[in-house]
Amino acid sequence: MLHLGDVFPKFTADTTQGEINFYEWLDESWGILFSHPSDFTPVCTTELARVLTLVPEFKKRNVKVIGLSCDTVESHNDWCKDIQCYAGCNENEPFPYPIIEDKARNLAVKLGMVDKDELDSSGIPLTARAVYIIDPKKKFRLSILYPATTGRNFESNPIIATDQAKVRPSWAPLNWNAKRVMSDSPSRGPLSGALETSHSM
Amino acid sequence: MLHLGDVFPKFTADTTQGEINFYEWLDESWGILFSHPSDFTPVCTTELARVLTLVPEFKKRNVKVIGLSCDTVESHNDWCKDIQCYAGCNENEPFPYPIIEDKARNLAVKLGMVDKDELDSSGIPLTARAVYIIDPKKKFRLSILYPATTGRNFESNPIIATDQAKVRPSWAPLNWNAKRVMSDSPSRGPLSGALETSHSM
Repeated sequence: MLHLGDVFPKFTADTTQGEINFYEWLDESWGILFSHPSDFTPVCTTELARVLTLVPEFKKRNVKVIGLSCDTVESHNDWCKDIQCYAGCNENEPFPYPIIEDKARNLAVKLGMVDKDELDSSGIPLTARAVYIIDPKKKFRLSILYPATTGRNFESNPIIATDQAKVRPSWAPLNWNAKRVMSDSPSRGPLSGALETSHSM
Repeated sequence: MLHLGDVFPKFTADTTQGEINFYEWLDESWGILFSHPSDFTPVCTTELARVLTLVPEFKKRNVKVIGLSCDTVESHNDWCKDIQCYAGCNENEPFPYPIIEDKARNLAVKLGMVDKDELDSSGIPLTARAVYIIDPKKKFRLSILYPATTGRNFESNPIIATDQAKVRPSWAPLNWNAKRVMSDSPSRGPLSGALETSHSM
Protein backbone atom coordinates (compact mmCIF):
# COMPACT_ATOMS: atom_id res chain seq x y z
CA MET A 1 0.00 0.00 0.00
CA LEU A 2 1.28 3.45 -0.97
CA HIS A 3 1.58 5.76 2.05
CA LEU A 4 2.22 9.50 2.14
CA GLY A 5 5.98 10.01 2.42
CA ASP A 6 6.77 6.87 0.35
CA VAL A 7 9.04 7.14 -2.67
CA PHE A 8 6.60 7.16 -5.62
CA PRO A 9 6.91 4.10 -7.92
CA LYS A 10 9.02 4.47 -11.07
CA PHE A 11 7.15 3.71 -14.28
CA THR A 12 7.19 4.20 -18.02
CA ALA A 13 3.94 4.70 -19.95
CA ASP A 14 2.58 5.40 -23.42
CA THR A 15 1.15 8.91 -23.55
CA THR A 16 -0.10 11.52 -25.99
CA GLN A 17 3.48 12.84 -25.98
CA GLY A 18 5.09 9.45 -26.68
CA GLU A 19 6.58 7.03 -24.16
CA ILE A 20 7.36 8.77 -20.89
CA ASN A 21 9.71 7.68 -18.13
CA PHE A 22 7.93 9.31 -15.19
CA TYR A 23 11.04 10.11 -13.16
CA GLU A 24 12.89 11.63 -16.14
CA TRP A 25 9.80 13.55 -17.22
CA LEU A 26 9.25 14.94 -13.70
CA ASP A 27 12.93 15.91 -13.36
CA GLU A 28 13.18 18.63 -10.65
CA SER A 29 9.49 19.61 -10.70
CA TRP A 30 6.52 18.88 -8.50
CA GLY A 31 4.11 16.54 -10.27
CA ILE A 32 0.33 16.16 -10.39
CA LEU A 33 -0.67 12.75 -11.73
CA PHE A 34 -4.45 12.66 -12.10
CA SER A 35 -6.81 10.12 -13.58
CA HIS A 36 -10.33 10.29 -15.02
CA PRO A 37 -12.86 7.53 -15.69
CA SER A 38 -13.43 7.93 -19.41
CA ASP A 39 -12.67 10.18 -22.41
CA PHE A 40 -15.57 12.08 -24.06
CA THR A 41 -17.70 12.32 -20.91
CA PRO A 42 -19.09 15.60 -19.59
CA VAL A 43 -17.58 15.95 -16.11
CA CYS A 44 -14.16 14.71 -17.28
CA THR A 45 -14.18 17.25 -20.11
CA THR A 46 -14.83 20.14 -17.72
CA GLU A 47 -12.13 18.88 -15.35
CA LEU A 48 -9.42 18.48 -17.99
CA ALA A 49 -10.38 21.84 -19.50
CA ARG A 50 -9.96 23.47 -16.09
CA VAL A 51 -6.52 21.87 -15.71
CA LEU A 52 -5.69 23.14 -19.21
CA THR A 53 -6.45 26.73 -18.20
CA LEU A 54 -4.41 26.29 -15.00
CA VAL A 55 -1.24 25.13 -16.82
CA PRO A 56 0.35 28.64 -16.79
CA GLU A 57 -0.20 28.81 -13.01
CA PHE A 58 1.33 25.37 -12.57
CA LYS A 59 4.35 26.36 -14.68
CA LYS A 60 4.95 29.44 -12.52
CA ARG A 61 5.09 27.12 -9.51
CA ASN A 62 7.36 24.48 -11.09
CA VAL A 63 4.55 21.92 -11.30
CA LYS A 64 4.11 19.43 -14.17
CA VAL A 65 0.73 17.84 -14.83
CA ILE A 66 -0.01 14.45 -16.40
CA GLY A 67 -3.40 12.77 -16.95
CA LEU A 68 -4.29 9.06 -17.08
CA SER A 69 -7.22 6.90 -18.12
CA CYS A 70 -7.96 3.45 -19.56
CA ASP A 71 -8.59 4.95 -23.02
CA THR A 72 -6.11 4.78 -25.88
CA VAL A 73 -3.69 7.50 -26.95
CA GLU A 74 -5.75 7.80 -30.15
CA SER A 75 -8.91 8.46 -28.12
CA HIS A 76 -7.08 10.95 -25.88
CA ASN A 77 -5.77 12.83 -28.92
CA ASP A 78 -9.23 13.11 -30.48
CA TRP A 79 -10.74 14.19 -27.17
CA CYS A 80 -8.04 16.85 -26.56
CA LYS A 81 -9.59 18.92 -29.37
CA ASP A 82 -12.93 18.90 -27.52
CA ILE A 83 -11.21 19.88 -24.27
CA GLN A 84 -9.39 22.77 -25.94
CA CYS A 85 -12.60 23.88 -27.61
CA TYR A 86 -14.53 23.73 -24.31
CA ALA A 87 -11.75 25.67 -22.54
CA GLY A 88 -11.86 28.38 -25.20
CA CYS A 89 -8.34 27.50 -26.39
CA ASN A 90 -7.05 27.02 -29.93
CA GLU A 91 -7.55 23.36 -30.83
CA ASN A 92 -4.72 23.54 -33.37
CA GLU A 93 -2.14 24.27 -30.66
CA PRO A 94 -0.34 21.30 -29.10
CA PHE A 95 -2.13 20.07 -25.97
CA PRO A 96 0.07 21.31 -23.10
CA TYR A 97 0.13 18.23 -20.85
CA PRO A 98 0.44 14.51 -21.62
CA ILE A 99 -2.29 11.92 -20.97
CA ILE A 100 -1.32 8.32 -20.23
CA GLU A 101 -2.94 5.30 -21.96
CA ASP A 102 -3.52 2.55 -19.39
CA LYS A 103 -5.79 0.12 -21.24
CA ALA A 104 -4.73 -2.89 -19.16
CA ARG A 105 -5.06 -0.93 -15.88
CA ASN A 106 -1.55 -2.06 -14.92
CA LEU A 107 -0.58 1.36 -13.65
CA ALA A 108 -4.01 2.25 -12.22
CA VAL A 109 -4.09 -0.96 -10.17
CA LYS A 110 -0.47 -0.56 -9.02
CA LEU A 111 -1.18 3.02 -7.89
CA GLY A 112 -4.62 2.32 -6.38
CA MET A 113 -6.45 4.49 -8.89
CA VAL A 114 -9.25 2.10 -9.96
CA ASP A 115 -12.86 2.29 -8.80
CA LYS A 116 -14.37 -1.18 -8.59
CA ASP A 117 -17.88 0.28 -8.67
CA GLU A 118 -17.39 1.90 -12.07
CA LEU A 119 -17.10 -0.65 -14.88
CA ASP A 120 -16.57 -0.29 -18.61
CA SER A 121 -18.78 -2.12 -21.14
CA SER A 122 -16.68 -5.29 -20.64
CA GLY A 123 -17.20 -5.18 -16.87
CA ILE A 124 -13.61 -4.08 -16.11
CA PRO A 125 -13.15 -1.34 -13.47
CA LEU A 126 -12.49 2.18 -14.74
CA THR A 127 -10.04 4.62 -13.23
CA ALA A 128 -11.35 6.80 -10.39
CA ARG A 129 -10.92 10.58 -10.22
CA ALA A 130 -7.51 10.45 -8.55
CA VAL A 131 -5.14 13.35 -7.88
CA TYR A 132 -1.66 12.37 -6.67
CA ILE A 133 0.94 14.98 -5.78
CA ILE A 134 4.60 13.97 -6.01
CA ASP A 135 7.38 16.28 -4.87
CA PRO A 136 10.70 16.93 -6.67
CA LYS A 137 12.37 14.21 -4.58
CA LYS A 138 9.78 11.76 -5.99
CA LYS A 139 7.98 11.44 -2.68
CA PHE A 140 4.25 10.82 -2.58
CA ARG A 141 2.87 13.86 -0.77
CA LEU A 142 -0.91 14.05 -1.15
CA SER A 143 -3.79 12.07 -2.63
CA ILE A 144 -7.43 12.56 -3.50
CA LEU A 145 -9.57 9.66 -4.74
CA TYR A 146 -13.08 10.59 -5.81
CA PRO A 147 -15.56 8.24 -7.48
CA ALA A 148 -16.69 8.87 -11.06
CA THR A 149 -19.86 10.50 -9.72
CA THR A 150 -18.04 13.30 -7.92
CA GLY A 151 -16.21 16.05 -9.81
CA ARG A 152 -13.05 17.46 -8.30
CA ASN A 153 -12.31 21.01 -7.30
CA PHE A 154 -9.08 22.06 -8.95
CA GLU A 155 -9.38 25.63 -7.63
CA SER A 156 -8.23 24.84 -4.11
CA ASN A 157 -4.98 23.42 -5.32
CA PRO A 158 -3.34 21.84 -2.28
CA ILE A 159 0.09 21.70 -3.87
CA ILE A 160 0.53 25.39 -3.16
CA ALA A 161 0.03 24.82 0.53
CA THR A 162 2.16 21.70 0.61
CA ASP A 163 4.97 23.38 -1.28
CA GLN A 164 4.94 26.62 0.70
CA ALA A 165 4.84 24.66 3.92
CA LYS A 166 8.09 22.89 3.05
CA VAL A 167 9.81 26.08 1.99
CA ARG A 168 8.92 28.41 4.82
CA PRO A 169 7.94 26.25 6.89
CA SER A 170 4.35 27.23 7.62
CA TRP A 171 1.00 25.49 7.72
CA ALA A 172 -2.14 25.89 5.73
CA PRO A 173 -5.06 26.26 8.12
CA LEU A 174 -8.54 24.78 7.93
CA ASN A 175 -10.37 25.87 4.75
CA TRP A 176 -7.24 27.57 3.43
CA ASN A 177 -6.93 28.74 -0.11
CA ALA A 178 -4.07 30.13 -2.15
CA LYS A 179 -5.00 33.72 -1.29
CA ARG A 180 -4.91 33.15 2.44
CA VAL A 181 -1.81 33.76 4.48
CA MET A 182 -0.39 30.59 5.99
CA SER A 183 -0.20 29.93 9.73
CA ASP A 184 3.23 30.23 11.28
CA SER A 185 3.39 27.66 14.01
CA PRO A 186 3.14 23.96 13.29
CA SER A 187 4.48 23.03 16.73
CA ARG A 188 2.54 21.01 19.24
CA GLY A 189 1.64 22.94 22.33
CA PRO A 190 -1.06 25.04 23.93
CA LEU A 191 -3.29 26.87 21.46
CA SER A 192 -1.00 29.52 20.10
CA GLY A 193 -0.94 32.58 17.90
CA ALA A 194 -1.27 30.39 14.84
CA LEU A 195 -4.73 29.35 15.95
CA GLU A 196 -5.71 32.95 16.42
CA THR A 197 -4.40 33.68 12.95
CA SER A 198 -6.40 30.94 11.31
CA HIS A 199 -9.44 31.93 13.36
CA SER A 200 -9.29 35.47 12.11
CA MET A 201 -8.99 34.45 8.45
CA MET B 1 -4.00 -1.83 -1.14
CA LEU B 2 -7.44 -0.42 -0.45
CA HIS B 3 -9.25 0.60 -3.67
CA LEU B 4 -12.45 2.58 -4.09
CA GLY B 5 -15.32 0.10 -4.27
CA ASP B 6 -13.63 -2.37 -1.87
CA VAL B 7 -15.46 -3.57 1.21
CA PHE B 8 -13.97 -1.48 4.02
CA PRO B 9 -12.00 -3.50 6.63
CA LYS B 10 -13.84 -4.52 9.82
CA PHE B 11 -12.16 -3.33 13.00
CA THR B 12 -12.70 -2.67 16.69
CA ALA B 13 -10.99 0.26 18.40
CA ASP B 14 -10.76 2.07 21.74
CA THR B 15 -12.42 5.46 21.48
CA THR B 16 -13.63 8.36 23.60
CA GLN B 17 -17.01 6.58 23.60
CA GLY B 18 -15.58 3.21 24.70
CA GLU B 19 -14.69 0.25 22.49
CA ILE B 20 -16.36 0.51 19.09
CA ASN B 21 -16.99 -2.22 16.56
CA PHE B 22 -16.87 -0.10 13.41
CA TYR B 23 -19.46 -2.08 11.45
CA GLU B 24 -21.96 -2.16 14.33
CA TRP B 25 -21.38 1.52 15.09
CA LEU B 26 -21.88 2.50 11.44
CA ASP B 27 -25.05 0.40 11.16
CA GLU B 28 -27.12 1.74 8.21
CA SER B 29 -25.37 5.14 8.02
CA TRP B 30 -22.75 6.66 5.77
CA GLY B 31 -19.47 7.06 7.66
CA ILE B 32 -16.68 9.61 7.65
CA LEU B 33 -13.54 8.24 9.27
CA PHE B 34 -10.95 10.99 9.48
CA SER B 35 -7.54 11.22 11.10
CA HIS B 36 -5.39 14.08 12.36
CA PRO B 37 -1.67 14.21 13.20
CA SER B 38 -1.76 15.24 16.84
CA ASP B 39 -4.08 16.46 19.63
CA PHE B 40 -3.63 20.01 20.98
CA THR B 41 -2.21 21.46 17.75
CA PRO B 42 -3.68 24.54 16.07
CA VAL B 43 -4.78 23.31 12.63
CA CYS B 44 -6.22 20.06 14.04
CA THR B 45 -8.21 22.03 16.62
CA THR B 46 -9.80 24.21 13.94
CA GLU B 47 -10.57 21.14 11.81
CA LEU B 48 -12.20 19.12 14.59
CA ALA B 49 -14.12 22.21 15.72
CA ARG B 50 -15.46 22.65 12.20
CA VAL B 51 -16.55 19.01 12.11
CA LEU B 52 -18.20 19.57 15.51
CA THR B 53 -20.31 22.41 14.13
CA LEU B 54 -21.21 20.31 11.07
CA VAL B 55 -22.55 17.36 13.12
CA PRO B 56 -26.22 18.50 12.83
CA GLU B 57 -25.81 18.66 9.03
CA PHE B 58 -24.26 15.20 8.97
CA LYS B 59 -27.11 13.83 11.12
CA LYS B 60 -29.70 15.21 8.68
CA ARG B 61 -27.94 13.27 5.92
CA ASN B 62 -27.57 10.00 7.86
CA VAL B 63 -23.80 10.40 8.19
CA LYS B 64 -21.80 9.34 11.27
CA VAL B 65 -18.38 10.86 11.94
CA ILE B 66 -15.43 9.32 13.78
CA GLY B 67 -11.94 10.77 14.34
CA LEU B 68 -8.61 8.98 14.79
CA SER B 69 -5.08 9.82 15.90
CA CYS B 70 -2.10 8.24 17.64
CA ASP B 71 -2.94 10.02 20.91
CA THR B 72 -4.60 8.33 23.89
CA VAL B 73 -8.29 8.45 24.78
CA GLU B 74 -7.27 10.49 27.84
CA SER B 75 -5.55 13.07 25.64
CA HIS B 76 -8.52 13.15 23.24
CA ASN B 77 -10.92 13.71 26.15
CA ASP B 78 -8.89 16.63 27.52
CA TRP B 79 -8.55 18.14 24.07
CA CYS B 80 -12.30 17.83 23.32
CA LYS B 81 -12.94 20.62 25.86
CA ASP B 82 -10.60 22.93 23.89
CA ILE B 83 -12.32 21.98 20.63
CA GLN B 84 -15.76 22.71 22.09
CA CYS B 85 -14.51 25.99 23.51
CA TYR B 86 -12.96 27.01 20.18
CA ALA B 87 -16.17 26.05 18.33
CA GLY B 88 -18.24 28.19 20.72
CA CYS B 89 -20.00 25.11 22.14
CA ASN B 90 -20.65 24.17 25.75
CA GLU B 91 -17.65 22.20 26.96
CA ASN B 92 -19.79 20.47 29.60
CA GLU B 93 -21.93 18.78 26.94
CA PRO B 94 -20.86 15.32 25.75
CA PHE B 95 -18.62 15.53 22.68
CA PRO B 96 -20.87 14.44 19.80
CA TYR B 97 -18.52 12.14 17.86
CA PRO B 98 -16.01 9.51 18.98
CA ILE B 99 -12.23 9.77 18.47
CA ILE B 100 -10.17 6.59 18.12
CA GLU B 101 -6.94 5.95 20.06
CA ASP B 102 -4.40 4.32 17.74
CA LYS B 103 -1.15 4.57 19.72
CA ALA B 104 0.47 1.58 17.98
CA ARG B 105 -0.61 2.82 14.50
CA ASN B 106 -2.08 -0.62 13.81
CA LEU B 107 -5.23 0.80 12.27
CA ALA B 108 -3.52 3.80 10.61
CA VAL B 109 -0.99 1.53 8.87
CA LYS B 110 -3.66 -0.99 7.85
CA LEU B 111 -5.79 1.79 6.35
CA GLY B 112 -2.89 3.73 4.76
CA MET B 113 -3.41 6.78 6.99
CA VAL B 114 0.19 7.37 8.16
CA ASP B 115 2.51 10.06 6.84
CA LYS B 116 6.11 8.86 6.89
CA ASP B 117 7.36 12.44 6.69
CA GLU B 118 5.69 13.47 9.94
CA LEU B 119 7.24 11.85 12.98
CA ASP B 120 6.47 12.06 16.68
CA SER B 121 9.18 12.73 19.30
CA SER B 122 10.16 9.03 19.19
CA GLY B 123 10.58 9.12 15.41
CA ILE B 124 7.40 7.10 14.70
CA PRO B 125 5.19 8.31 11.80
CA LEU B 126 2.09 10.29 12.77
CA THR B 127 -1.30 9.94 11.14
CA ALA B 128 -1.92 12.09 8.05
CA ARG B 129 -5.00 14.27 7.54
CA ALA B 130 -7.11 11.49 6.03
CA VAL B 131 -10.82 11.58 5.19
CA TYR B 132 -12.37 8.24 4.23
CA ILE B 133 -16.00 7.94 3.21
CA ILE B 134 -17.70 4.58 3.69
CA ASP B 135 -21.23 3.93 2.44
CA PRO B 136 -24.01 2.08 4.33
CA LYS B 137 -23.02 -1.18 2.57
CA LYS B 138 -19.53 -0.73 4.10
CA LYS B 139 -17.95 0.06 0.77
CA PHE B 140 -14.99 2.42 0.56
CA ARG B 141 -16.23 5.28 -1.59
CA LEU B 142 -13.86 8.25 -1.39
CA SER B 143 -10.54 9.22 0.17
CA ILE B 144 -8.50 12.33 0.82
CA LEU B 145 -4.98 12.12 2.24
CA TYR B 146 -3.37 15.45 3.05
CA PRO B 147 -0.04 15.88 4.83
CA ALA B 148 0.08 17.49 8.29
CA THR B 149 1.06 20.79 6.70
CA THR B 150 -2.16 21.13 4.70
CA GLY B 151 -5.50 21.78 6.41
CA ARG B 152 -8.59 20.23 4.88
CA ASN B 153 -11.67 21.95 3.58
CA PHE B 154 -14.70 20.41 5.26
CA GLU B 155 -17.08 22.87 3.58
CA SER B 156 -17.12 21.13 0.20
CA ASN B 157 -18.23 17.89 1.72
CA PRO B 158 -18.05 15.34 -1.07
CA ILE B 159 -20.33 12.86 0.66
CA ILE B 160 -23.30 14.93 -0.37
CA ALA B 161 -22.38 14.57 -4.03
CA THR B 162 -21.51 10.90 -3.72
CA ASP B 163 -24.72 10.11 -1.87
CA GLN B 164 -27.01 12.10 -4.16
CA ALA B 165 -25.35 10.55 -7.18
CA LYS B 166 -26.28 7.06 -6.01
CA VAL B 167 -29.83 7.99 -5.16
CA ARG B 168 -30.84 9.95 -8.23
CA PRO B 169 -28.50 9.04 -10.11
CA SER B 170 -26.78 12.27 -11.03
CA TRP B 171 -23.25 13.57 -11.15
CA ALA B 172 -21.51 16.37 -9.35
CA PRO B 173 -19.74 18.54 -11.89
CA LEU B 174 -16.33 20.17 -11.73
CA ASN B 175 -16.01 22.56 -8.76
CA TRP B 176 -19.41 21.51 -7.45
CA ASN B 177 -20.61 22.39 -4.01
CA ALA B 178 -23.62 21.41 -1.96
CA LYS B 179 -25.66 24.38 -3.18
CA ARG B 180 -25.17 23.58 -6.84
CA VAL B 181 -27.61 21.49 -8.78
CA MET B 182 -26.14 18.18 -9.90
CA SER B 183 -25.66 17.23 -13.53
CA ASP B 184 -28.14 14.75 -14.92
CA SER B 185 -26.23 12.68 -17.40
CA PRO B 186 -23.38 10.46 -16.32
CA SER B 187 -23.44 8.52 -19.58
CA ARG B 188 -20.54 8.36 -21.99
CA GLY B 189 -21.26 10.06 -25.28
CA PRO B 190 -21.05 13.33 -27.12
CA LEU B 191 -20.98 16.39 -24.89
CA SER B 192 -24.52 16.61 -23.60
CA GLY B 193 -26.84 18.82 -21.61
CA ALA B 194 -24.96 17.95 -18.44
CA LEU B 195 -21.91 19.71 -19.76
CA GLU B 196 -23.95 22.78 -20.58
CA THR B 197 -25.36 22.68 -17.06
CA SER B 198 -21.96 22.55 -15.41
CA HIS B 199 -20.63 25.18 -17.77
CA SER B 200 -23.34 27.60 -16.85
CA MET B 201 -22.80 27.18 -13.12
